Amino acid sequence: MAEKVLVTGGGGYVGSHCVVELIEAGYCPVVVDNFSNAVRGEGDVPESLRRIENLLGISIEFHELDLLDRPGLEKIFKKHSFFAVMHFAGLKAVGESVEKPLHYYRVNLTGSMNLLEVMQAHGVRNLVFSSSATVYGDPQRLPIDEQHPVGGCTNPYGKTKYFIEEMIVDQCKAEKQDWNAVLLRYFNPIGAHSSGLIGEDPQGIPNNLLPYIAQVAVGRRKYLKVFGNDYNTLDGTGVRDYIHVVDLAKGHIAALRMFKDNCGCKVYNLGTGTGYSVLQMVKAMEKASGREISYQIAPRREGDIASCYADPRLAEKELGWKADFGIEKMCEDLWRWQSKNPTGFNNGTAS
Amino acid sequence: MAEKVLVTGGGGYVGSHCVVELIEAGYCPVVVDNFSNAVRGEGDVPESLRRIENLLGISIEFHELDLLDRPGLEKIFKKHSFFAVMHFAGLKAVGESVEKPLHYYRVNLTGSMNLLEVMQAHGVRNLVFSSSATVYGDPQRLPIDEQHPVGGCTNPYGKTKYFIEEMIVDQCKAEKQDWNAVLLRYFNPIGAHSSGLIGEDPQGIPNNLLPYIAQVAVGRRKYLKVFGNDYNTLDGTGVRDYIHVVDLAKGHIAALRMFKDNCGCKVYNLGTGTGYSVLQMVKAMEKASGREISYQIAPRREGDIASCYADPRLAEKELGWKADFGIEKMCEDLWRWQSKNPTGFNNGTAS
Repeated sequence: MAEKVLVTGGGGYVGSHCVVELIEAGYCPVVVDNFSNAVRGEGDVPESLRRIENLLGISIEFHELDLLDRPGLEKIFKKHSFFAVMHFAGLKAVGESVEKPLHYYRVNLTGSMNLLEVMQAHGVRNLVFSSSATVYGDPQRLPIDEQHPVGGCTNPYGKTKYFIEEMIVDQCKAEKQDWNAVLLRYFNPIGAHSSGLIGEDPQGIPNNLLPYIAQVAVGRRKYLKVFGNDYNTLDGTGVRDYIHVVDLAKGHIAALRMFKDNCGCKVYNLGTGTGYSVLQMVKAMEKASGREISYQIAPRREGDIASCYADPRLAEKELGWKADFGIEKMCEDLWRWQSKNPTGFNNGTAS
Repeated sequence: MAEKVLVTGGGGYVGSHCVVELIEAGYCPVVVDNFSNAVRGEGDVPESLRRIENLLGISIEFHELDLLDRPGLEKIFKKHSFFAVMHFAGLKAVGESVEKPLHYYRVNLTGSMNLLEVMQAHGVRNLVFSSSATVYGDPQRLPIDEQHPVGGCTNPYGKTKYFIEEMIVDQCKAEKQDWNAVLLRYFNPIGAHSSGLIGEDPQGIPNNLLPYIAQVAVGRRKYLKVFGNDYNTLDGTGVRDYIHVVDLAKGHIAALRMFKDNCGCKVYNLGTGTGYSVLQMVKAMEKASGREISYQIAPRREGDIASCYADPRLAEKELGWKADFGIEKMCEDLWRWQSKNPTGFNNGTAS
């Protein structure tokens, strides 16, 4: 029988791509999501999951659940015997977190505490946590390896990622014989499944660069604002480490394999190790889409940094994982998703 | 009418001394405590508060309440219009926090989140938070001023203090016009009220040095273990900044005054600025008690540092507060408390 993996926030962008890879790798995902970022499809299932079911010709167990609903979470752990949990659920908008810090702390911390406690109570001891390079704060050196100091984040969103990491680290220390966790620090996931059926579908104005560029390319937005062209980078615009979301998802499957050997608590960067500037990404998306992408230079944004990219070697060494796809493929797949679904999951036409 | 101040954890060591000073300063404290560290006295009131009532000839409003009981907390905010909150409630044993991290995160973080949310909902916007010099982690320089980096704590107890500080900082930033908070980073509070009626009453084996020494002096324990005498200090034993708990409590009253001017979020060290070694404290307690205090040298404890003491000048400059009492007075008052109450609050004889 396939090993069951609970996927929290499995209707969202990274979560749904991990659900595909879990199934491809022979696991049985059980998905919970509260629709805070996932679009509701037919039968009150996230539209992303409905499309995965059609694509793969299988059925996925889904529960509408908020992690703040502790009795609801208990029920699912009573029903299933999980091999592991992949924890994606959480609020993730940096700007909103600055405006509503208590809300972010409540949702992200209490959700994660509920999950850890219920795992503890039900003897589930293997956890993959969706963390972020934001825990490194302003890079003190590049590339960023896992030994880089953490905790310097200035916004509540980033702090919640860091705080949850610390909770998991401490729990693994306290129960050394039993608990295993892999904390995966994402750089900048972009792209989409090559089917074009699932992808990133930000609600409202996109917070991230590539969804914004894609919406300009498809005509939903007029032009891109480039915040700062006077950074100390090749063309003055900010440099980031973009990683294909399918590569990222495969990193999670590699992490699951660590649990066979009682790995304790491990931390890995998931990035490509290569940085691209905003203008390089604009050009790559122009090429992939065949459209011109208008942009205007705007002043720097407070808190933005010049460059950030990963040292991804530890994941290669210990997880046996590295990113396969380059920016051409990332942009092609993003464009396929965006052009087939100009308004994201809402239109339902790509089903 | 006296301004009302909610005191969470007001039955405990620092909380109860602050209750005395609040009353002396003309405030009306409303106390909540869950008896996790306070001893239950007659009428289901903490014994510490019962003694304060007798001492001052007044009556103190008390509610038995766990901050995890959100509806219970709401009820108290509905009943009263608070000028400010002093937040002491929380678990505080470093060693236990390493063994039970999830429990510490749950109690300290969720308790504090409940409090902040209920304050927000009821328009109470002034908060004094009982923080700790532990947020500085290993000192990178001495004396430690408030600009010293924070977040380097290695145990869950210390991390919860840091995380709660960050929540408060972020909430004050998000609601700049409204929220005020004073984060007070305690060094090592010792001593007791000069009446000898209230003092520190650790349950079980004391985690802190002075209560341990006092229990040796009074005959409850045979000898003190001194962990390490090969540190780079005057006599090889660890040096700390001890502060009289009544001085500390007065710092909280000074903090309340900041709220009149919409101070935003402020951070102050509460310490004397002077460090004393373990052996200096043993001698001071021998002098105060007239008893010999046996000790044995034991190996260093993991995580202990050589020296730690405050730069307390910012509190003097901005709060107009500084510690008045030296170690003689600290030890005298501690000894009065300990000798009148050899088994702490449990014996009830000092009432």
